[in-house]
Amino acid sequence: MKKIQVPKESVKRLFLYLRNLNYLAQEGRETISSDKLAQDIYVSAAQVRKDLSYFGDFGRKGVGYNVQSLISDIKSVLGLDKKWLVALVGVGRLGSALLNYPGLEELGFQISVAFDIDPKKIGKTYREVKIKDSSQIEKIIKKEKIKIAIITVPVSAAQKTADVLTKAGIKGILNFSPKYLTIPENVKIKTVNIAIELGNLAYYLTHSESEARSFI
Amino acid sequence: MKKIQVPKESVKRLFLYLRNLNYLAQEGRETISSDKLAQDIYVSAAQVRKDLSYFGDFGRKGVGYNVQSLISDIKSVLGLDKKWLVALVGVGRLGSALLNYPGLEELGFQISVAFDIDPKKIGKTYREVKIKDSSQIEKIIKKEKIKIAIITVPVSAAQKTADVLTKAGIKGILNFSPKYLTIPENVKIKTVNIAIELGNLAYYLTHSESEARSFI
Repeated sequence: MKKIQVPKESVKRLFLYLRNLNYLAQEGRETISSDKLAQDIYVSAAQVRKDLSYFGDFGRKGVGYNVQSLISDIKSVLGLDKKWLVALVGVGRLGSALLNYPGLEELGFQISVAFDIDPKKIGKTYREVKIKDSSQIEKIIKKEKIKIAIITVPVSAAQKTADVLTKAGIKGILNFSPKYLTIPENVKIKTVNIAIELGNLAYYLTHSESEARSFI
Repeated sequence: MKKIQVPKESVKRLFLYLRNLNYLAQEGRETISSDKLAQDIYVSAAQVRKDLSYFGDFGRKGVGYNVQSLISDIKSVLGLDKKWLVALVGVGRLGSALLNYPGLEELGFQISVAFDIDPKKIGKTYREVKIKDSSQIEKIIKKEKIKIAIITVPVSAAQKTADVLTKAGIKGILNFSPKYLTIPENVKIKTVNIAIELGNLAYYLTHSESEARSFI
């Protein structure tokens, strides 16, 4: 299933469908129509059906899609059908909040190690995650073959942290620092920029509702 | 300038250009070419020129765009040329991390009040932000005419919080709870789902580099 070429706009929507399907599964729903799945995503039911048809799930007329099997199929396409170990660097307020963040396990992510430079934190265990000395990043990440890391260090330490992580073999970085980080070509970075998220809301409040809705 | 109709895909890119321009301004750059502006966004320089031409900034051949005036123009189009007061509900780890988050002021956002139910927190001031009793949400938000709020309460309290906020006149919500929240039609919600961000990285690591890069 992993070899299927799905258009990039469809891939983006798969994450949104998966999010909605997880909500529905929590509510105990067993089947779902394309109409319901399209809800809150501002696409048509026809678009949902087209997106899902790329990997062969056509639903059943009058019955819809089976929630659990659709979750499983989408996870497989997205590479979420296995467990991903994640390293977290920077156990400050934001970092420790993420150690506590619900919903990661649901998609198969497990923060297996955290790093900090503060001697008062090093050696402690927080939510079953051991906090190690940042000087051990390269050694531990290589040994445990971790490929994804979260950066929650202060802005001033962000680039140095990215350098060490990529040297250690990290291939995907989730960056919470508002700084632009230079990374090697073969590493992927996603930056969560809370200011830009608020910016989207400001855009909505500034413009007419219909226009802003169509922007999502 | 606010009446200009900019295509929705261009609007999304304006935020990305603004982010890059802010980095460049921090570095002291005065002018910028469309090539450089296109960098890291995976669009062409021609696309950048087209996006910016919607609001009349065509740059100057051989010189490029003036960084500061482009920042100012984009902010105006996006509704970021004024100060936005923001209320935060839930001063736990994540909430207090956000009170500390750099980069909000740069885009004109100011968290002006925070709410919590914990008597040990109520009445304290954190980073110049007063923490008020959550029972005061409706009264204070109405009085201060705040239109944007951030929800960082536990999942179990998220829907109730959204209900109170929208009753108080909030029109834009930035939601950090992984729960789907039901809100009135005329309120806009953005959910920061950290699991989905990690999911994007997992997709990249699962698929070939070229394919995943084009997905961004």
